[in-house]
Amino acid sequence: MQLPILIDPIAGKSLQAQIAEQIRQLILDGRLAPRARMPASRALAQDLDVSRNTVIGAFARLAAEGLLEGREPIGTFVAERVAPASPTPVAPPAPHPDAAVRGGTRARVRQRLLFRGAAHQVLAPHGQQLPFDFWVGRPDARLFPMRAWQSLLARRLRGAASQLCEYGDPQGVLELREAVAAHVGATRGIATDAGRIVITNGIQEGLNLLAWLLLARGVDVAVENPCYRGAARVFASHGADLRPVPVDDEGIVCAQLPPSAALAYVTPSHQYPLGATLSLSRRRDLLAWAEASGSYIAEDDYDCDFFYDGAPLPALKSLDVNDQVIYLGTFSKSLGAGLRIGYMVLPSELCEPACHAKALLNNCQPWLEQAALAAFIHEGGFAEHLRRLRQLHMLRRNHLCAALAHGLPGWRVAGLGGGMHLVVQLPQEGPDARAVEEMARAQGVGVYGIDDGNAQLFDADADDPLQRVLLLGYAALTEAEISEAVLRLRRAVGVREIARDPLQEPFAGAGAADAISNTE
Amino acid sequence: MQLPILIDPIAGKSLQAQIAEQIRQLILDGRLAPRARMPASRALAQDLDVSRNTVIGAFARLAAEGLLEGREPIGTFVAERVAPASPTPVAPPAPHPDAAVRGGTRARVRQRLLFRGAAHQVLAPHGQQLPFDFWVGRPDARLFPMRAWQSLLARRLRGAASQLCEYGDPQGVLELREAVAAHVGATRGIATDAGRIVITNGIQEGLNLLAWLLLARGVDVAVENPCYRGAARVFASHGADLRPVPVDDEGIVCAQLPPSAALAYVTPSHQYPLGATLSLSRRRDLLAWAEASGSYIAEDDYDCDFFYDGAPLPALKSLDVNDQVIYLGTFSKSLGAGLRIGYMVLPSELCEPACHAKALLNNCQPWLEQAALAAFIHEGGFAEHLRRLRQLHMLRRNHLCAALAHGLPGWRVAGLGGGMHLVVQLPQEGPDARAVEEMARAQGVGVYGIDDGNAQLFDADADDPLQRVLLLGYAALTEAEISEAVLRLRRAVGVREIARDPLQEPFAGAGAADAISNTE
Repeated sequence: MQLPILIDPIAGKSLQAQIAEQIRQLILDGRLAPRARMPASRALAQDLDVSRNTVIGAFARLAAEGLLEGREPIGTFVAERVAPASPTPVAPPAPHPDAAVRGGTRARVRQRLLFRGAAHQVLAPHGQQLPFDFWVGRPDARLFPMRAWQSLLARRLRGAASQLCEYGDPQGVLELREAVAAHVGATRGIATDAGRIVITNGIQEGLNLLAWLLLARGVDVAVENPCYRGAARVFASHGADLRPVPVDDEGIVCAQLPPSAALAYVTPSHQYPLGATLSLSRRRDLLAWAEASGSYIAEDDYDCDFFYDGAPLPALKSLDVNDQVIYLGTFSKSLGAGLRIGYMVLPSELCEPACHAKALLNNCQPWLEQAALAAFIHEGGFAEHLRRLRQLHMLRRNHLCAALAHGLPGWRVAGLGGGMHLVVQLPQEGPDARAVEEMARAQGVGVYGIDDGNAQLFDADADDPLQRVLLLGYAALTEAEISEAVLRLRRAVGVREIARDPLQEPFAGAGAADAISNTE
Repeated sequence: MQLPILIDPIAGKSLQAQIAEQIRQLILDGRLAPRARMPASRALAQDLDVSRNTVIGAFARLAAEGLLEGREPIGTFVAERVAPASPTPVAPPAPHPDAAVRGGTRARVRQRLLFRGAAHQVLAPHGQQLPFDFWVGRPDARLFPMRAWQSLLARRLRGAASQLCEYGDPQGVLELREAVAAHVGATRGIATDAGRIVITNGIQEGLNLLAWLLLARGVDVAVENPCYRGAARVFASHGADLRPVPVDDEGIVCAQLPPSAALAYVTPSHQYPLGATLSLSRRRDLLAWAEASGSYIAEDDYDCDFFYDGAPLPALKSLDVNDQVIYLGTFSKSLGAGLRIGYMVLPSELCEPACHAKALLNNCQPWLEQAALAAFIHEGGFAEHLRRLRQLHMLRRNHLCAALAHGLPGWRVAGLGGGMHLVVQLPQEGPDARAVEEMARAQGVGVYGIDDGNAQLFDADADDPLQRVLLLGYAALTEAEISEAVLRLRRAVGVREIARDPLQEPFAGAGAADAISNTE
């Protein structure tokens, strides 16, 4: 440890006093923690260019004050009992002789802040651990392929010191880009290669990169209404004008797309938040709009890995003969958001600018997780994991539908085709979404209206039917948990509880619980 | 695997023909790779909602064509020999019936690209592996504490599935922020706490976040001349006007700071690229300027961990009673850039906006490396590692200085006080930096002028003395390697080679090599 001590050889005080005073201050400020080991007197003397006796004298003085303890022959330590007031103190701004001037400076400095953005909700909005939480987009941590991941990380680490030490390719680790190209080819019908792919810190960063490439003050961007709030906020923060376009049960209503938009941001596989799958004819309309208006399309395929009823529609990008679609994918839903790995498949002319923007933004992604994931995909573990998740998610979705149909028959369910959440339309006469959220939370159950579910609704008044929409993410709850959660929801909204048995029997199947116990 | 197959029940073709055709296309496009396993006929039939015999018929047809191979009882596979032309093919844009219209669309689409930025150099500019590379800012991978890191990662992974699966706090893992607060308190004299710290993907991302908070078109930002190019380019990409301020051997010349600047970006510990340490009196001048102009200061402390001559000056931030300094730190130099972990210590009013900006940018950093690093710091391993690096870096610096003084006496050396690189001023009469770079590279030695060394020089003509400056990063080369590299540099610039012995003896000490062989 090198201590930040300044010796002033021409100051009025002795060198010993100067050293003692500064170390005392470091200890009392808590910058040197209790029990911290002090540098050896010989080393400190050398660093400060003073004699060793000067340092020994300063240490002795501080020991006499009870601030240091010598424990020969180990060394000198900060005493245990001089805990500062707070374990990690913040220095209060020192009072200035001319406080008025200083106050004026503070005010002027504060005016330098230009950023007016507010983020979407990264963590669940209530900040609580709820026993039964239908928080959207959350995978089940109990299903994480931990043993495989541990061994992949350990294997990739061996002999990899230089990859840990050096900056990597801003575009992403080549092996991972190759693996992603093969994966989106086989599962999403996208013919591409590693040269067209940029690895990002999740889809959120991909949205930033494309906003940086395409948007600016006064540029129009078409978004679904309602849409994912994280996208709307990023586009707005780049100054773009949001043009909301309605969605129905076939997805975005292409006839209402504004020809002025430089970009249309869509979620074709499972519209966020309402869950519709964009129909094939609408996909063709959307591409025709892009061709006619000379615009790009951002296809956010955030939960495309899960499609339950028949084969999935291929990605919009797979129909993109004119190379106008920017495809955004992620491993946050299939593996975990804590890994922070997403990717973009880019039109050819955007690849090089996107790599420049990524390098300017943060040089590149961390190496290790990219390398481990590349191996996981190449060796087939990922496809196996996805297959297993898909089966379990489908069971959970079916179970939730049955439980709701039985226990809360007035709740109309939609958005079931894929993904990890479904949508409930609450009855017209009862409490609205926000009220149900609160009643449910009191019962330990998390459900989310459009607003708390990270979605942005434009031009809506209090009577809008979407104020009566709830989002229920079902991927992280077992069937037994879902049964109990629905029982509690009934109680929360005041549905007379009949008897537990008839409800429990059909839904609390043992299948899912068994499946979980033999994870991996 | 779910195959992207679309069945059109009212098409003219049989279901079997439709399925066969689409699988054939997937194989010929390379989207289904040779030897890939096909889904079971029963599963595919269920997905597509057709009879199992229809699928079996389609598979048989493709087997007859040599595209599939049945290997009972294992399953059906794509044949080995139908390798597509390229292992990862890009679909050529399909020719459109109305090619002229489409060409016009492409041109119009391309005009949507607004980004004009170019990145700094993330990887060494020549793109070669040179045997003796003085690339700046690169730590020695042979010194990475691999065994400790492996065991930390393995330990933190156990039971951590939910941290891998869930989004984390945009501000960063609390434990790591606490560890960083303790570290900058003890080593840099900064009294702060976890609430004031935001974990970033390196300093580069921190620069982006503060540019997002403070800069916009028409806002002035003061930068050192020359300065780190990654910063200059980020500020420019946010539209700010760069105001270069000269540096001398005491660092930035504060008297020339423009009062209009919202932000001054400085590197006080070891000016990038020229290596000066900002003197104490200049530090006071800089803070006085900030107070008088109501501006922020960004203190980029990229290689502050290494200070060789006496104790380090405390950070500018430690003198910042008025809370106007944004401190930027990184673990890229002390551990490795492939980890992508940096941090900011923020003035109080910027903390919340910075967290919002980070959340909007990419939600948060990956969890695992943050958790491992927190433990490494808390448990003292990091301080131990730093101490060891500091000793070795000092030996290497001293060795390089001695070798240059002996072998290339016309090369004047500066910027020695700390960090991981030093600066050479080439003699006026010989070749300039770019010419020496090329001659050295031909001998397998990497040295870097201002421009190739990721620095930005403003308002300079060809006669500028800085065109004759070379940067030599010495941290990643052993003493023996440095001796050989300097011998080759002599050869490169045509200094008559006397005899190897007199040069070799004083510099090729065994010390460093021994130290490396017992890494950890």
